[in-house]
Amino acid sequence: MNKITYTTKIRVRYAETDKMGFVYNGNYFTYSEVGRAEFMRNFGLPYTVCEEHNIQMPLVEAGMKYKHPAFYDDVLAIETSLEPITGATVRFRYNILRDNTTIAEGFTVHSFMDIHTKKPVRPPKFILDVIDKINSLQEKD
Amino acid sequence: MNKITYTTKIRVRYAETDKMGFVYNGNYFTYSEVGRAEFMRNFGLPYTVCEEHNIQMPLVEAGMKYKHPAFYDDVLAIETSLEPITGATVRFRYNILRDNTTIAEGFTVHSFMDIHTKKPVRPPKFILDVIDKINSLQEKD
Amino acid sequence: MNKITYTTKIRVRYAETDKMGFVYNGNYFTYSEVGRAEFMRNFGLPYTVCEEHNIQMPLVEAGMKYKHPAFYDDVLAIETSLEPITGATVRFRYNILRDNTTIAEGFTVHSFMDIHTKKPVRPPKFILDVIDKINSLQEKD
Amino acid sequence: MNKITYTTKIRVRYAETDKMGFVYNGNYFTYSEVGRAEFMRNFGLPYTVCEEHNIQMPLVEAGMKYKHPAFYDDVLAIETSLEPITGATVRFRYNILRDNTTIAEGFTVHSFMDIHTKKPVRPPKFILDVIDKINSLQEKD
Repeated sequence: MNKITYTTKIRVRYAETDKMGFVYNGNYFTYSEVGRAEFMRNFGLPYTVCEEHNIQMPLVEAGMKYKHPAFYDDVLAIETSLEPITGATVRFRYNILRDNTTIAEGFTVHSFMDIHTKKPVRPPKFILDVIDKINSLQEKD
Repeated sequence: MNKITYTTKIRVRYAETDKMGFVYNGNYFTYSEVGRAEFMRNFGLPYTVCEEHNIQMPLVEAGMKYKHPAFYDDVLAIETSLEPITGATVRFRYNILRDNTTIAEGFTVHSFMDIHTKKPVRPPKFILDVIDKINSLQEKD
Repeated sequence: MNKITYTTKIRVRYAETDKMGFVYNGNYFTYSEVGRAEFMRNFGLPYTVCEEHNIQMPLVEAGMKYKHPAFYDDVLAIETSLEPITGATVRFRYNILRDNTTIAEGFTVHSFMDIHTKKPVRPPKFILDVIDKINSLQEKD
Repeated sequence: MNKITYTTKIRVRYAETDKMGFVYNGNYFTYSEVGRAEFMRNFGLPYTVCEEHNIQMPLVEAGMKYKHPAFYDDVLAIETSLEPITGATVRFRYNILRDNTTIAEGFTVHSFMDIHTKKPVRPPKFILDVIDKINSLQEKD
């Protein structure tokens, strides 16, 4: 299967390091957010558009495996992909690389929520359509 | 004049340090937020109550003088005080200490905003009353 | 088995929320850090002492399940426990509660590293002794 | 006088917003860091090179005036400039814009410190040379 990925680059900020000299562990989830946002924008669905349609996608679960440290001023590539949707949640995967070496691998699982009521909702059609489009590209191969 | 202050303690987190080994400069504004929140709570006006009354207090200006570095696991005392209100803004002052030594001194200036319209509003009476109470305590001396 | 836990409380800061109105997902790892630090301090081994002995404990893996959102000014209890050590890593578990309801459950896995060379080292005796003490308390039951 | 500036762009992350719906005040100092880092890189002196020469530049003072809020996904331009050096400190200025409107204006003042001893040092020649180069460009006009 052809895995559709989208790669964004970020540069590590001093604020993101800790006294160990590495990027602080929690900041990899911010990097994941950047990867996910650019993945969605690339497929025609910026997260701001989700919010304009009254949908937010809070996290249900997140995980990260730290393989190598990242350092101040490193340029990191965040390779993001999307799993086929199952039920009411959607799962993204992140491969964070420096110079073609994976330094961290993670995932996030999201549900869908009404922006006003903050209650869970079923995945809305305008989002399912984009996810279907991505998955059909993945299955083409 | 008797300056009314309220002192809160925080402990420096690893996440708040940077590779220099010090607390990152921007995090002192989070510490100021903690000092301000506990000051307001102590005088009967938790910030959550302001928001329940549809008022938010965005920053108009902020400043910090860094005298000595703060380190991981340091217990810092944040001594907060309030200036007499002038016009449409309110000014807090922060004295951040470790073992009675000032390590940073700062201030924030806030305006008042409607939580829904996000437009500026005049300082609401329920807040002015609290500020007056604090200032009258200050002038007693 | 008697699971030894240590519970710390934190209060959610405005800086830790996001425009969804919830605590941002990555900040739960900072809360985990606070839980872990206080757990270790309680058992006689503050993390600063590890560093004074030239040992740092970088993350190898982390995970979090988000059950309910946390809000500004919430007081959260972080219940931390330690798994029996296996090989070269140590695993902490976190149960984050508000008013006796679990709002998030997570874990972190740490290796041991020389503070200067940044190379992995075997778990040092002064740390193993503390872990053994905790585990023996757990097995007593 | 011809003011030499260097402009970098950043995109606001969800993690950087707060429940008010705006970028949290303290995060403007992280944006300032990005502006300063790219300014220095542009003039041939990446901050990593300073650190390789055992020099760090901790903050002595910082300030920010908030004119308009910044929102999630905004692309902000950070226009950075440098003041002529006076004594042992150096001052950067930041003008943060969205679509040619200034949303915040700030400054940071830095001293110079030995990376190992953490003691203040006089501005090192390799940094003074770069600052002189920038200032001579500014005075040309």
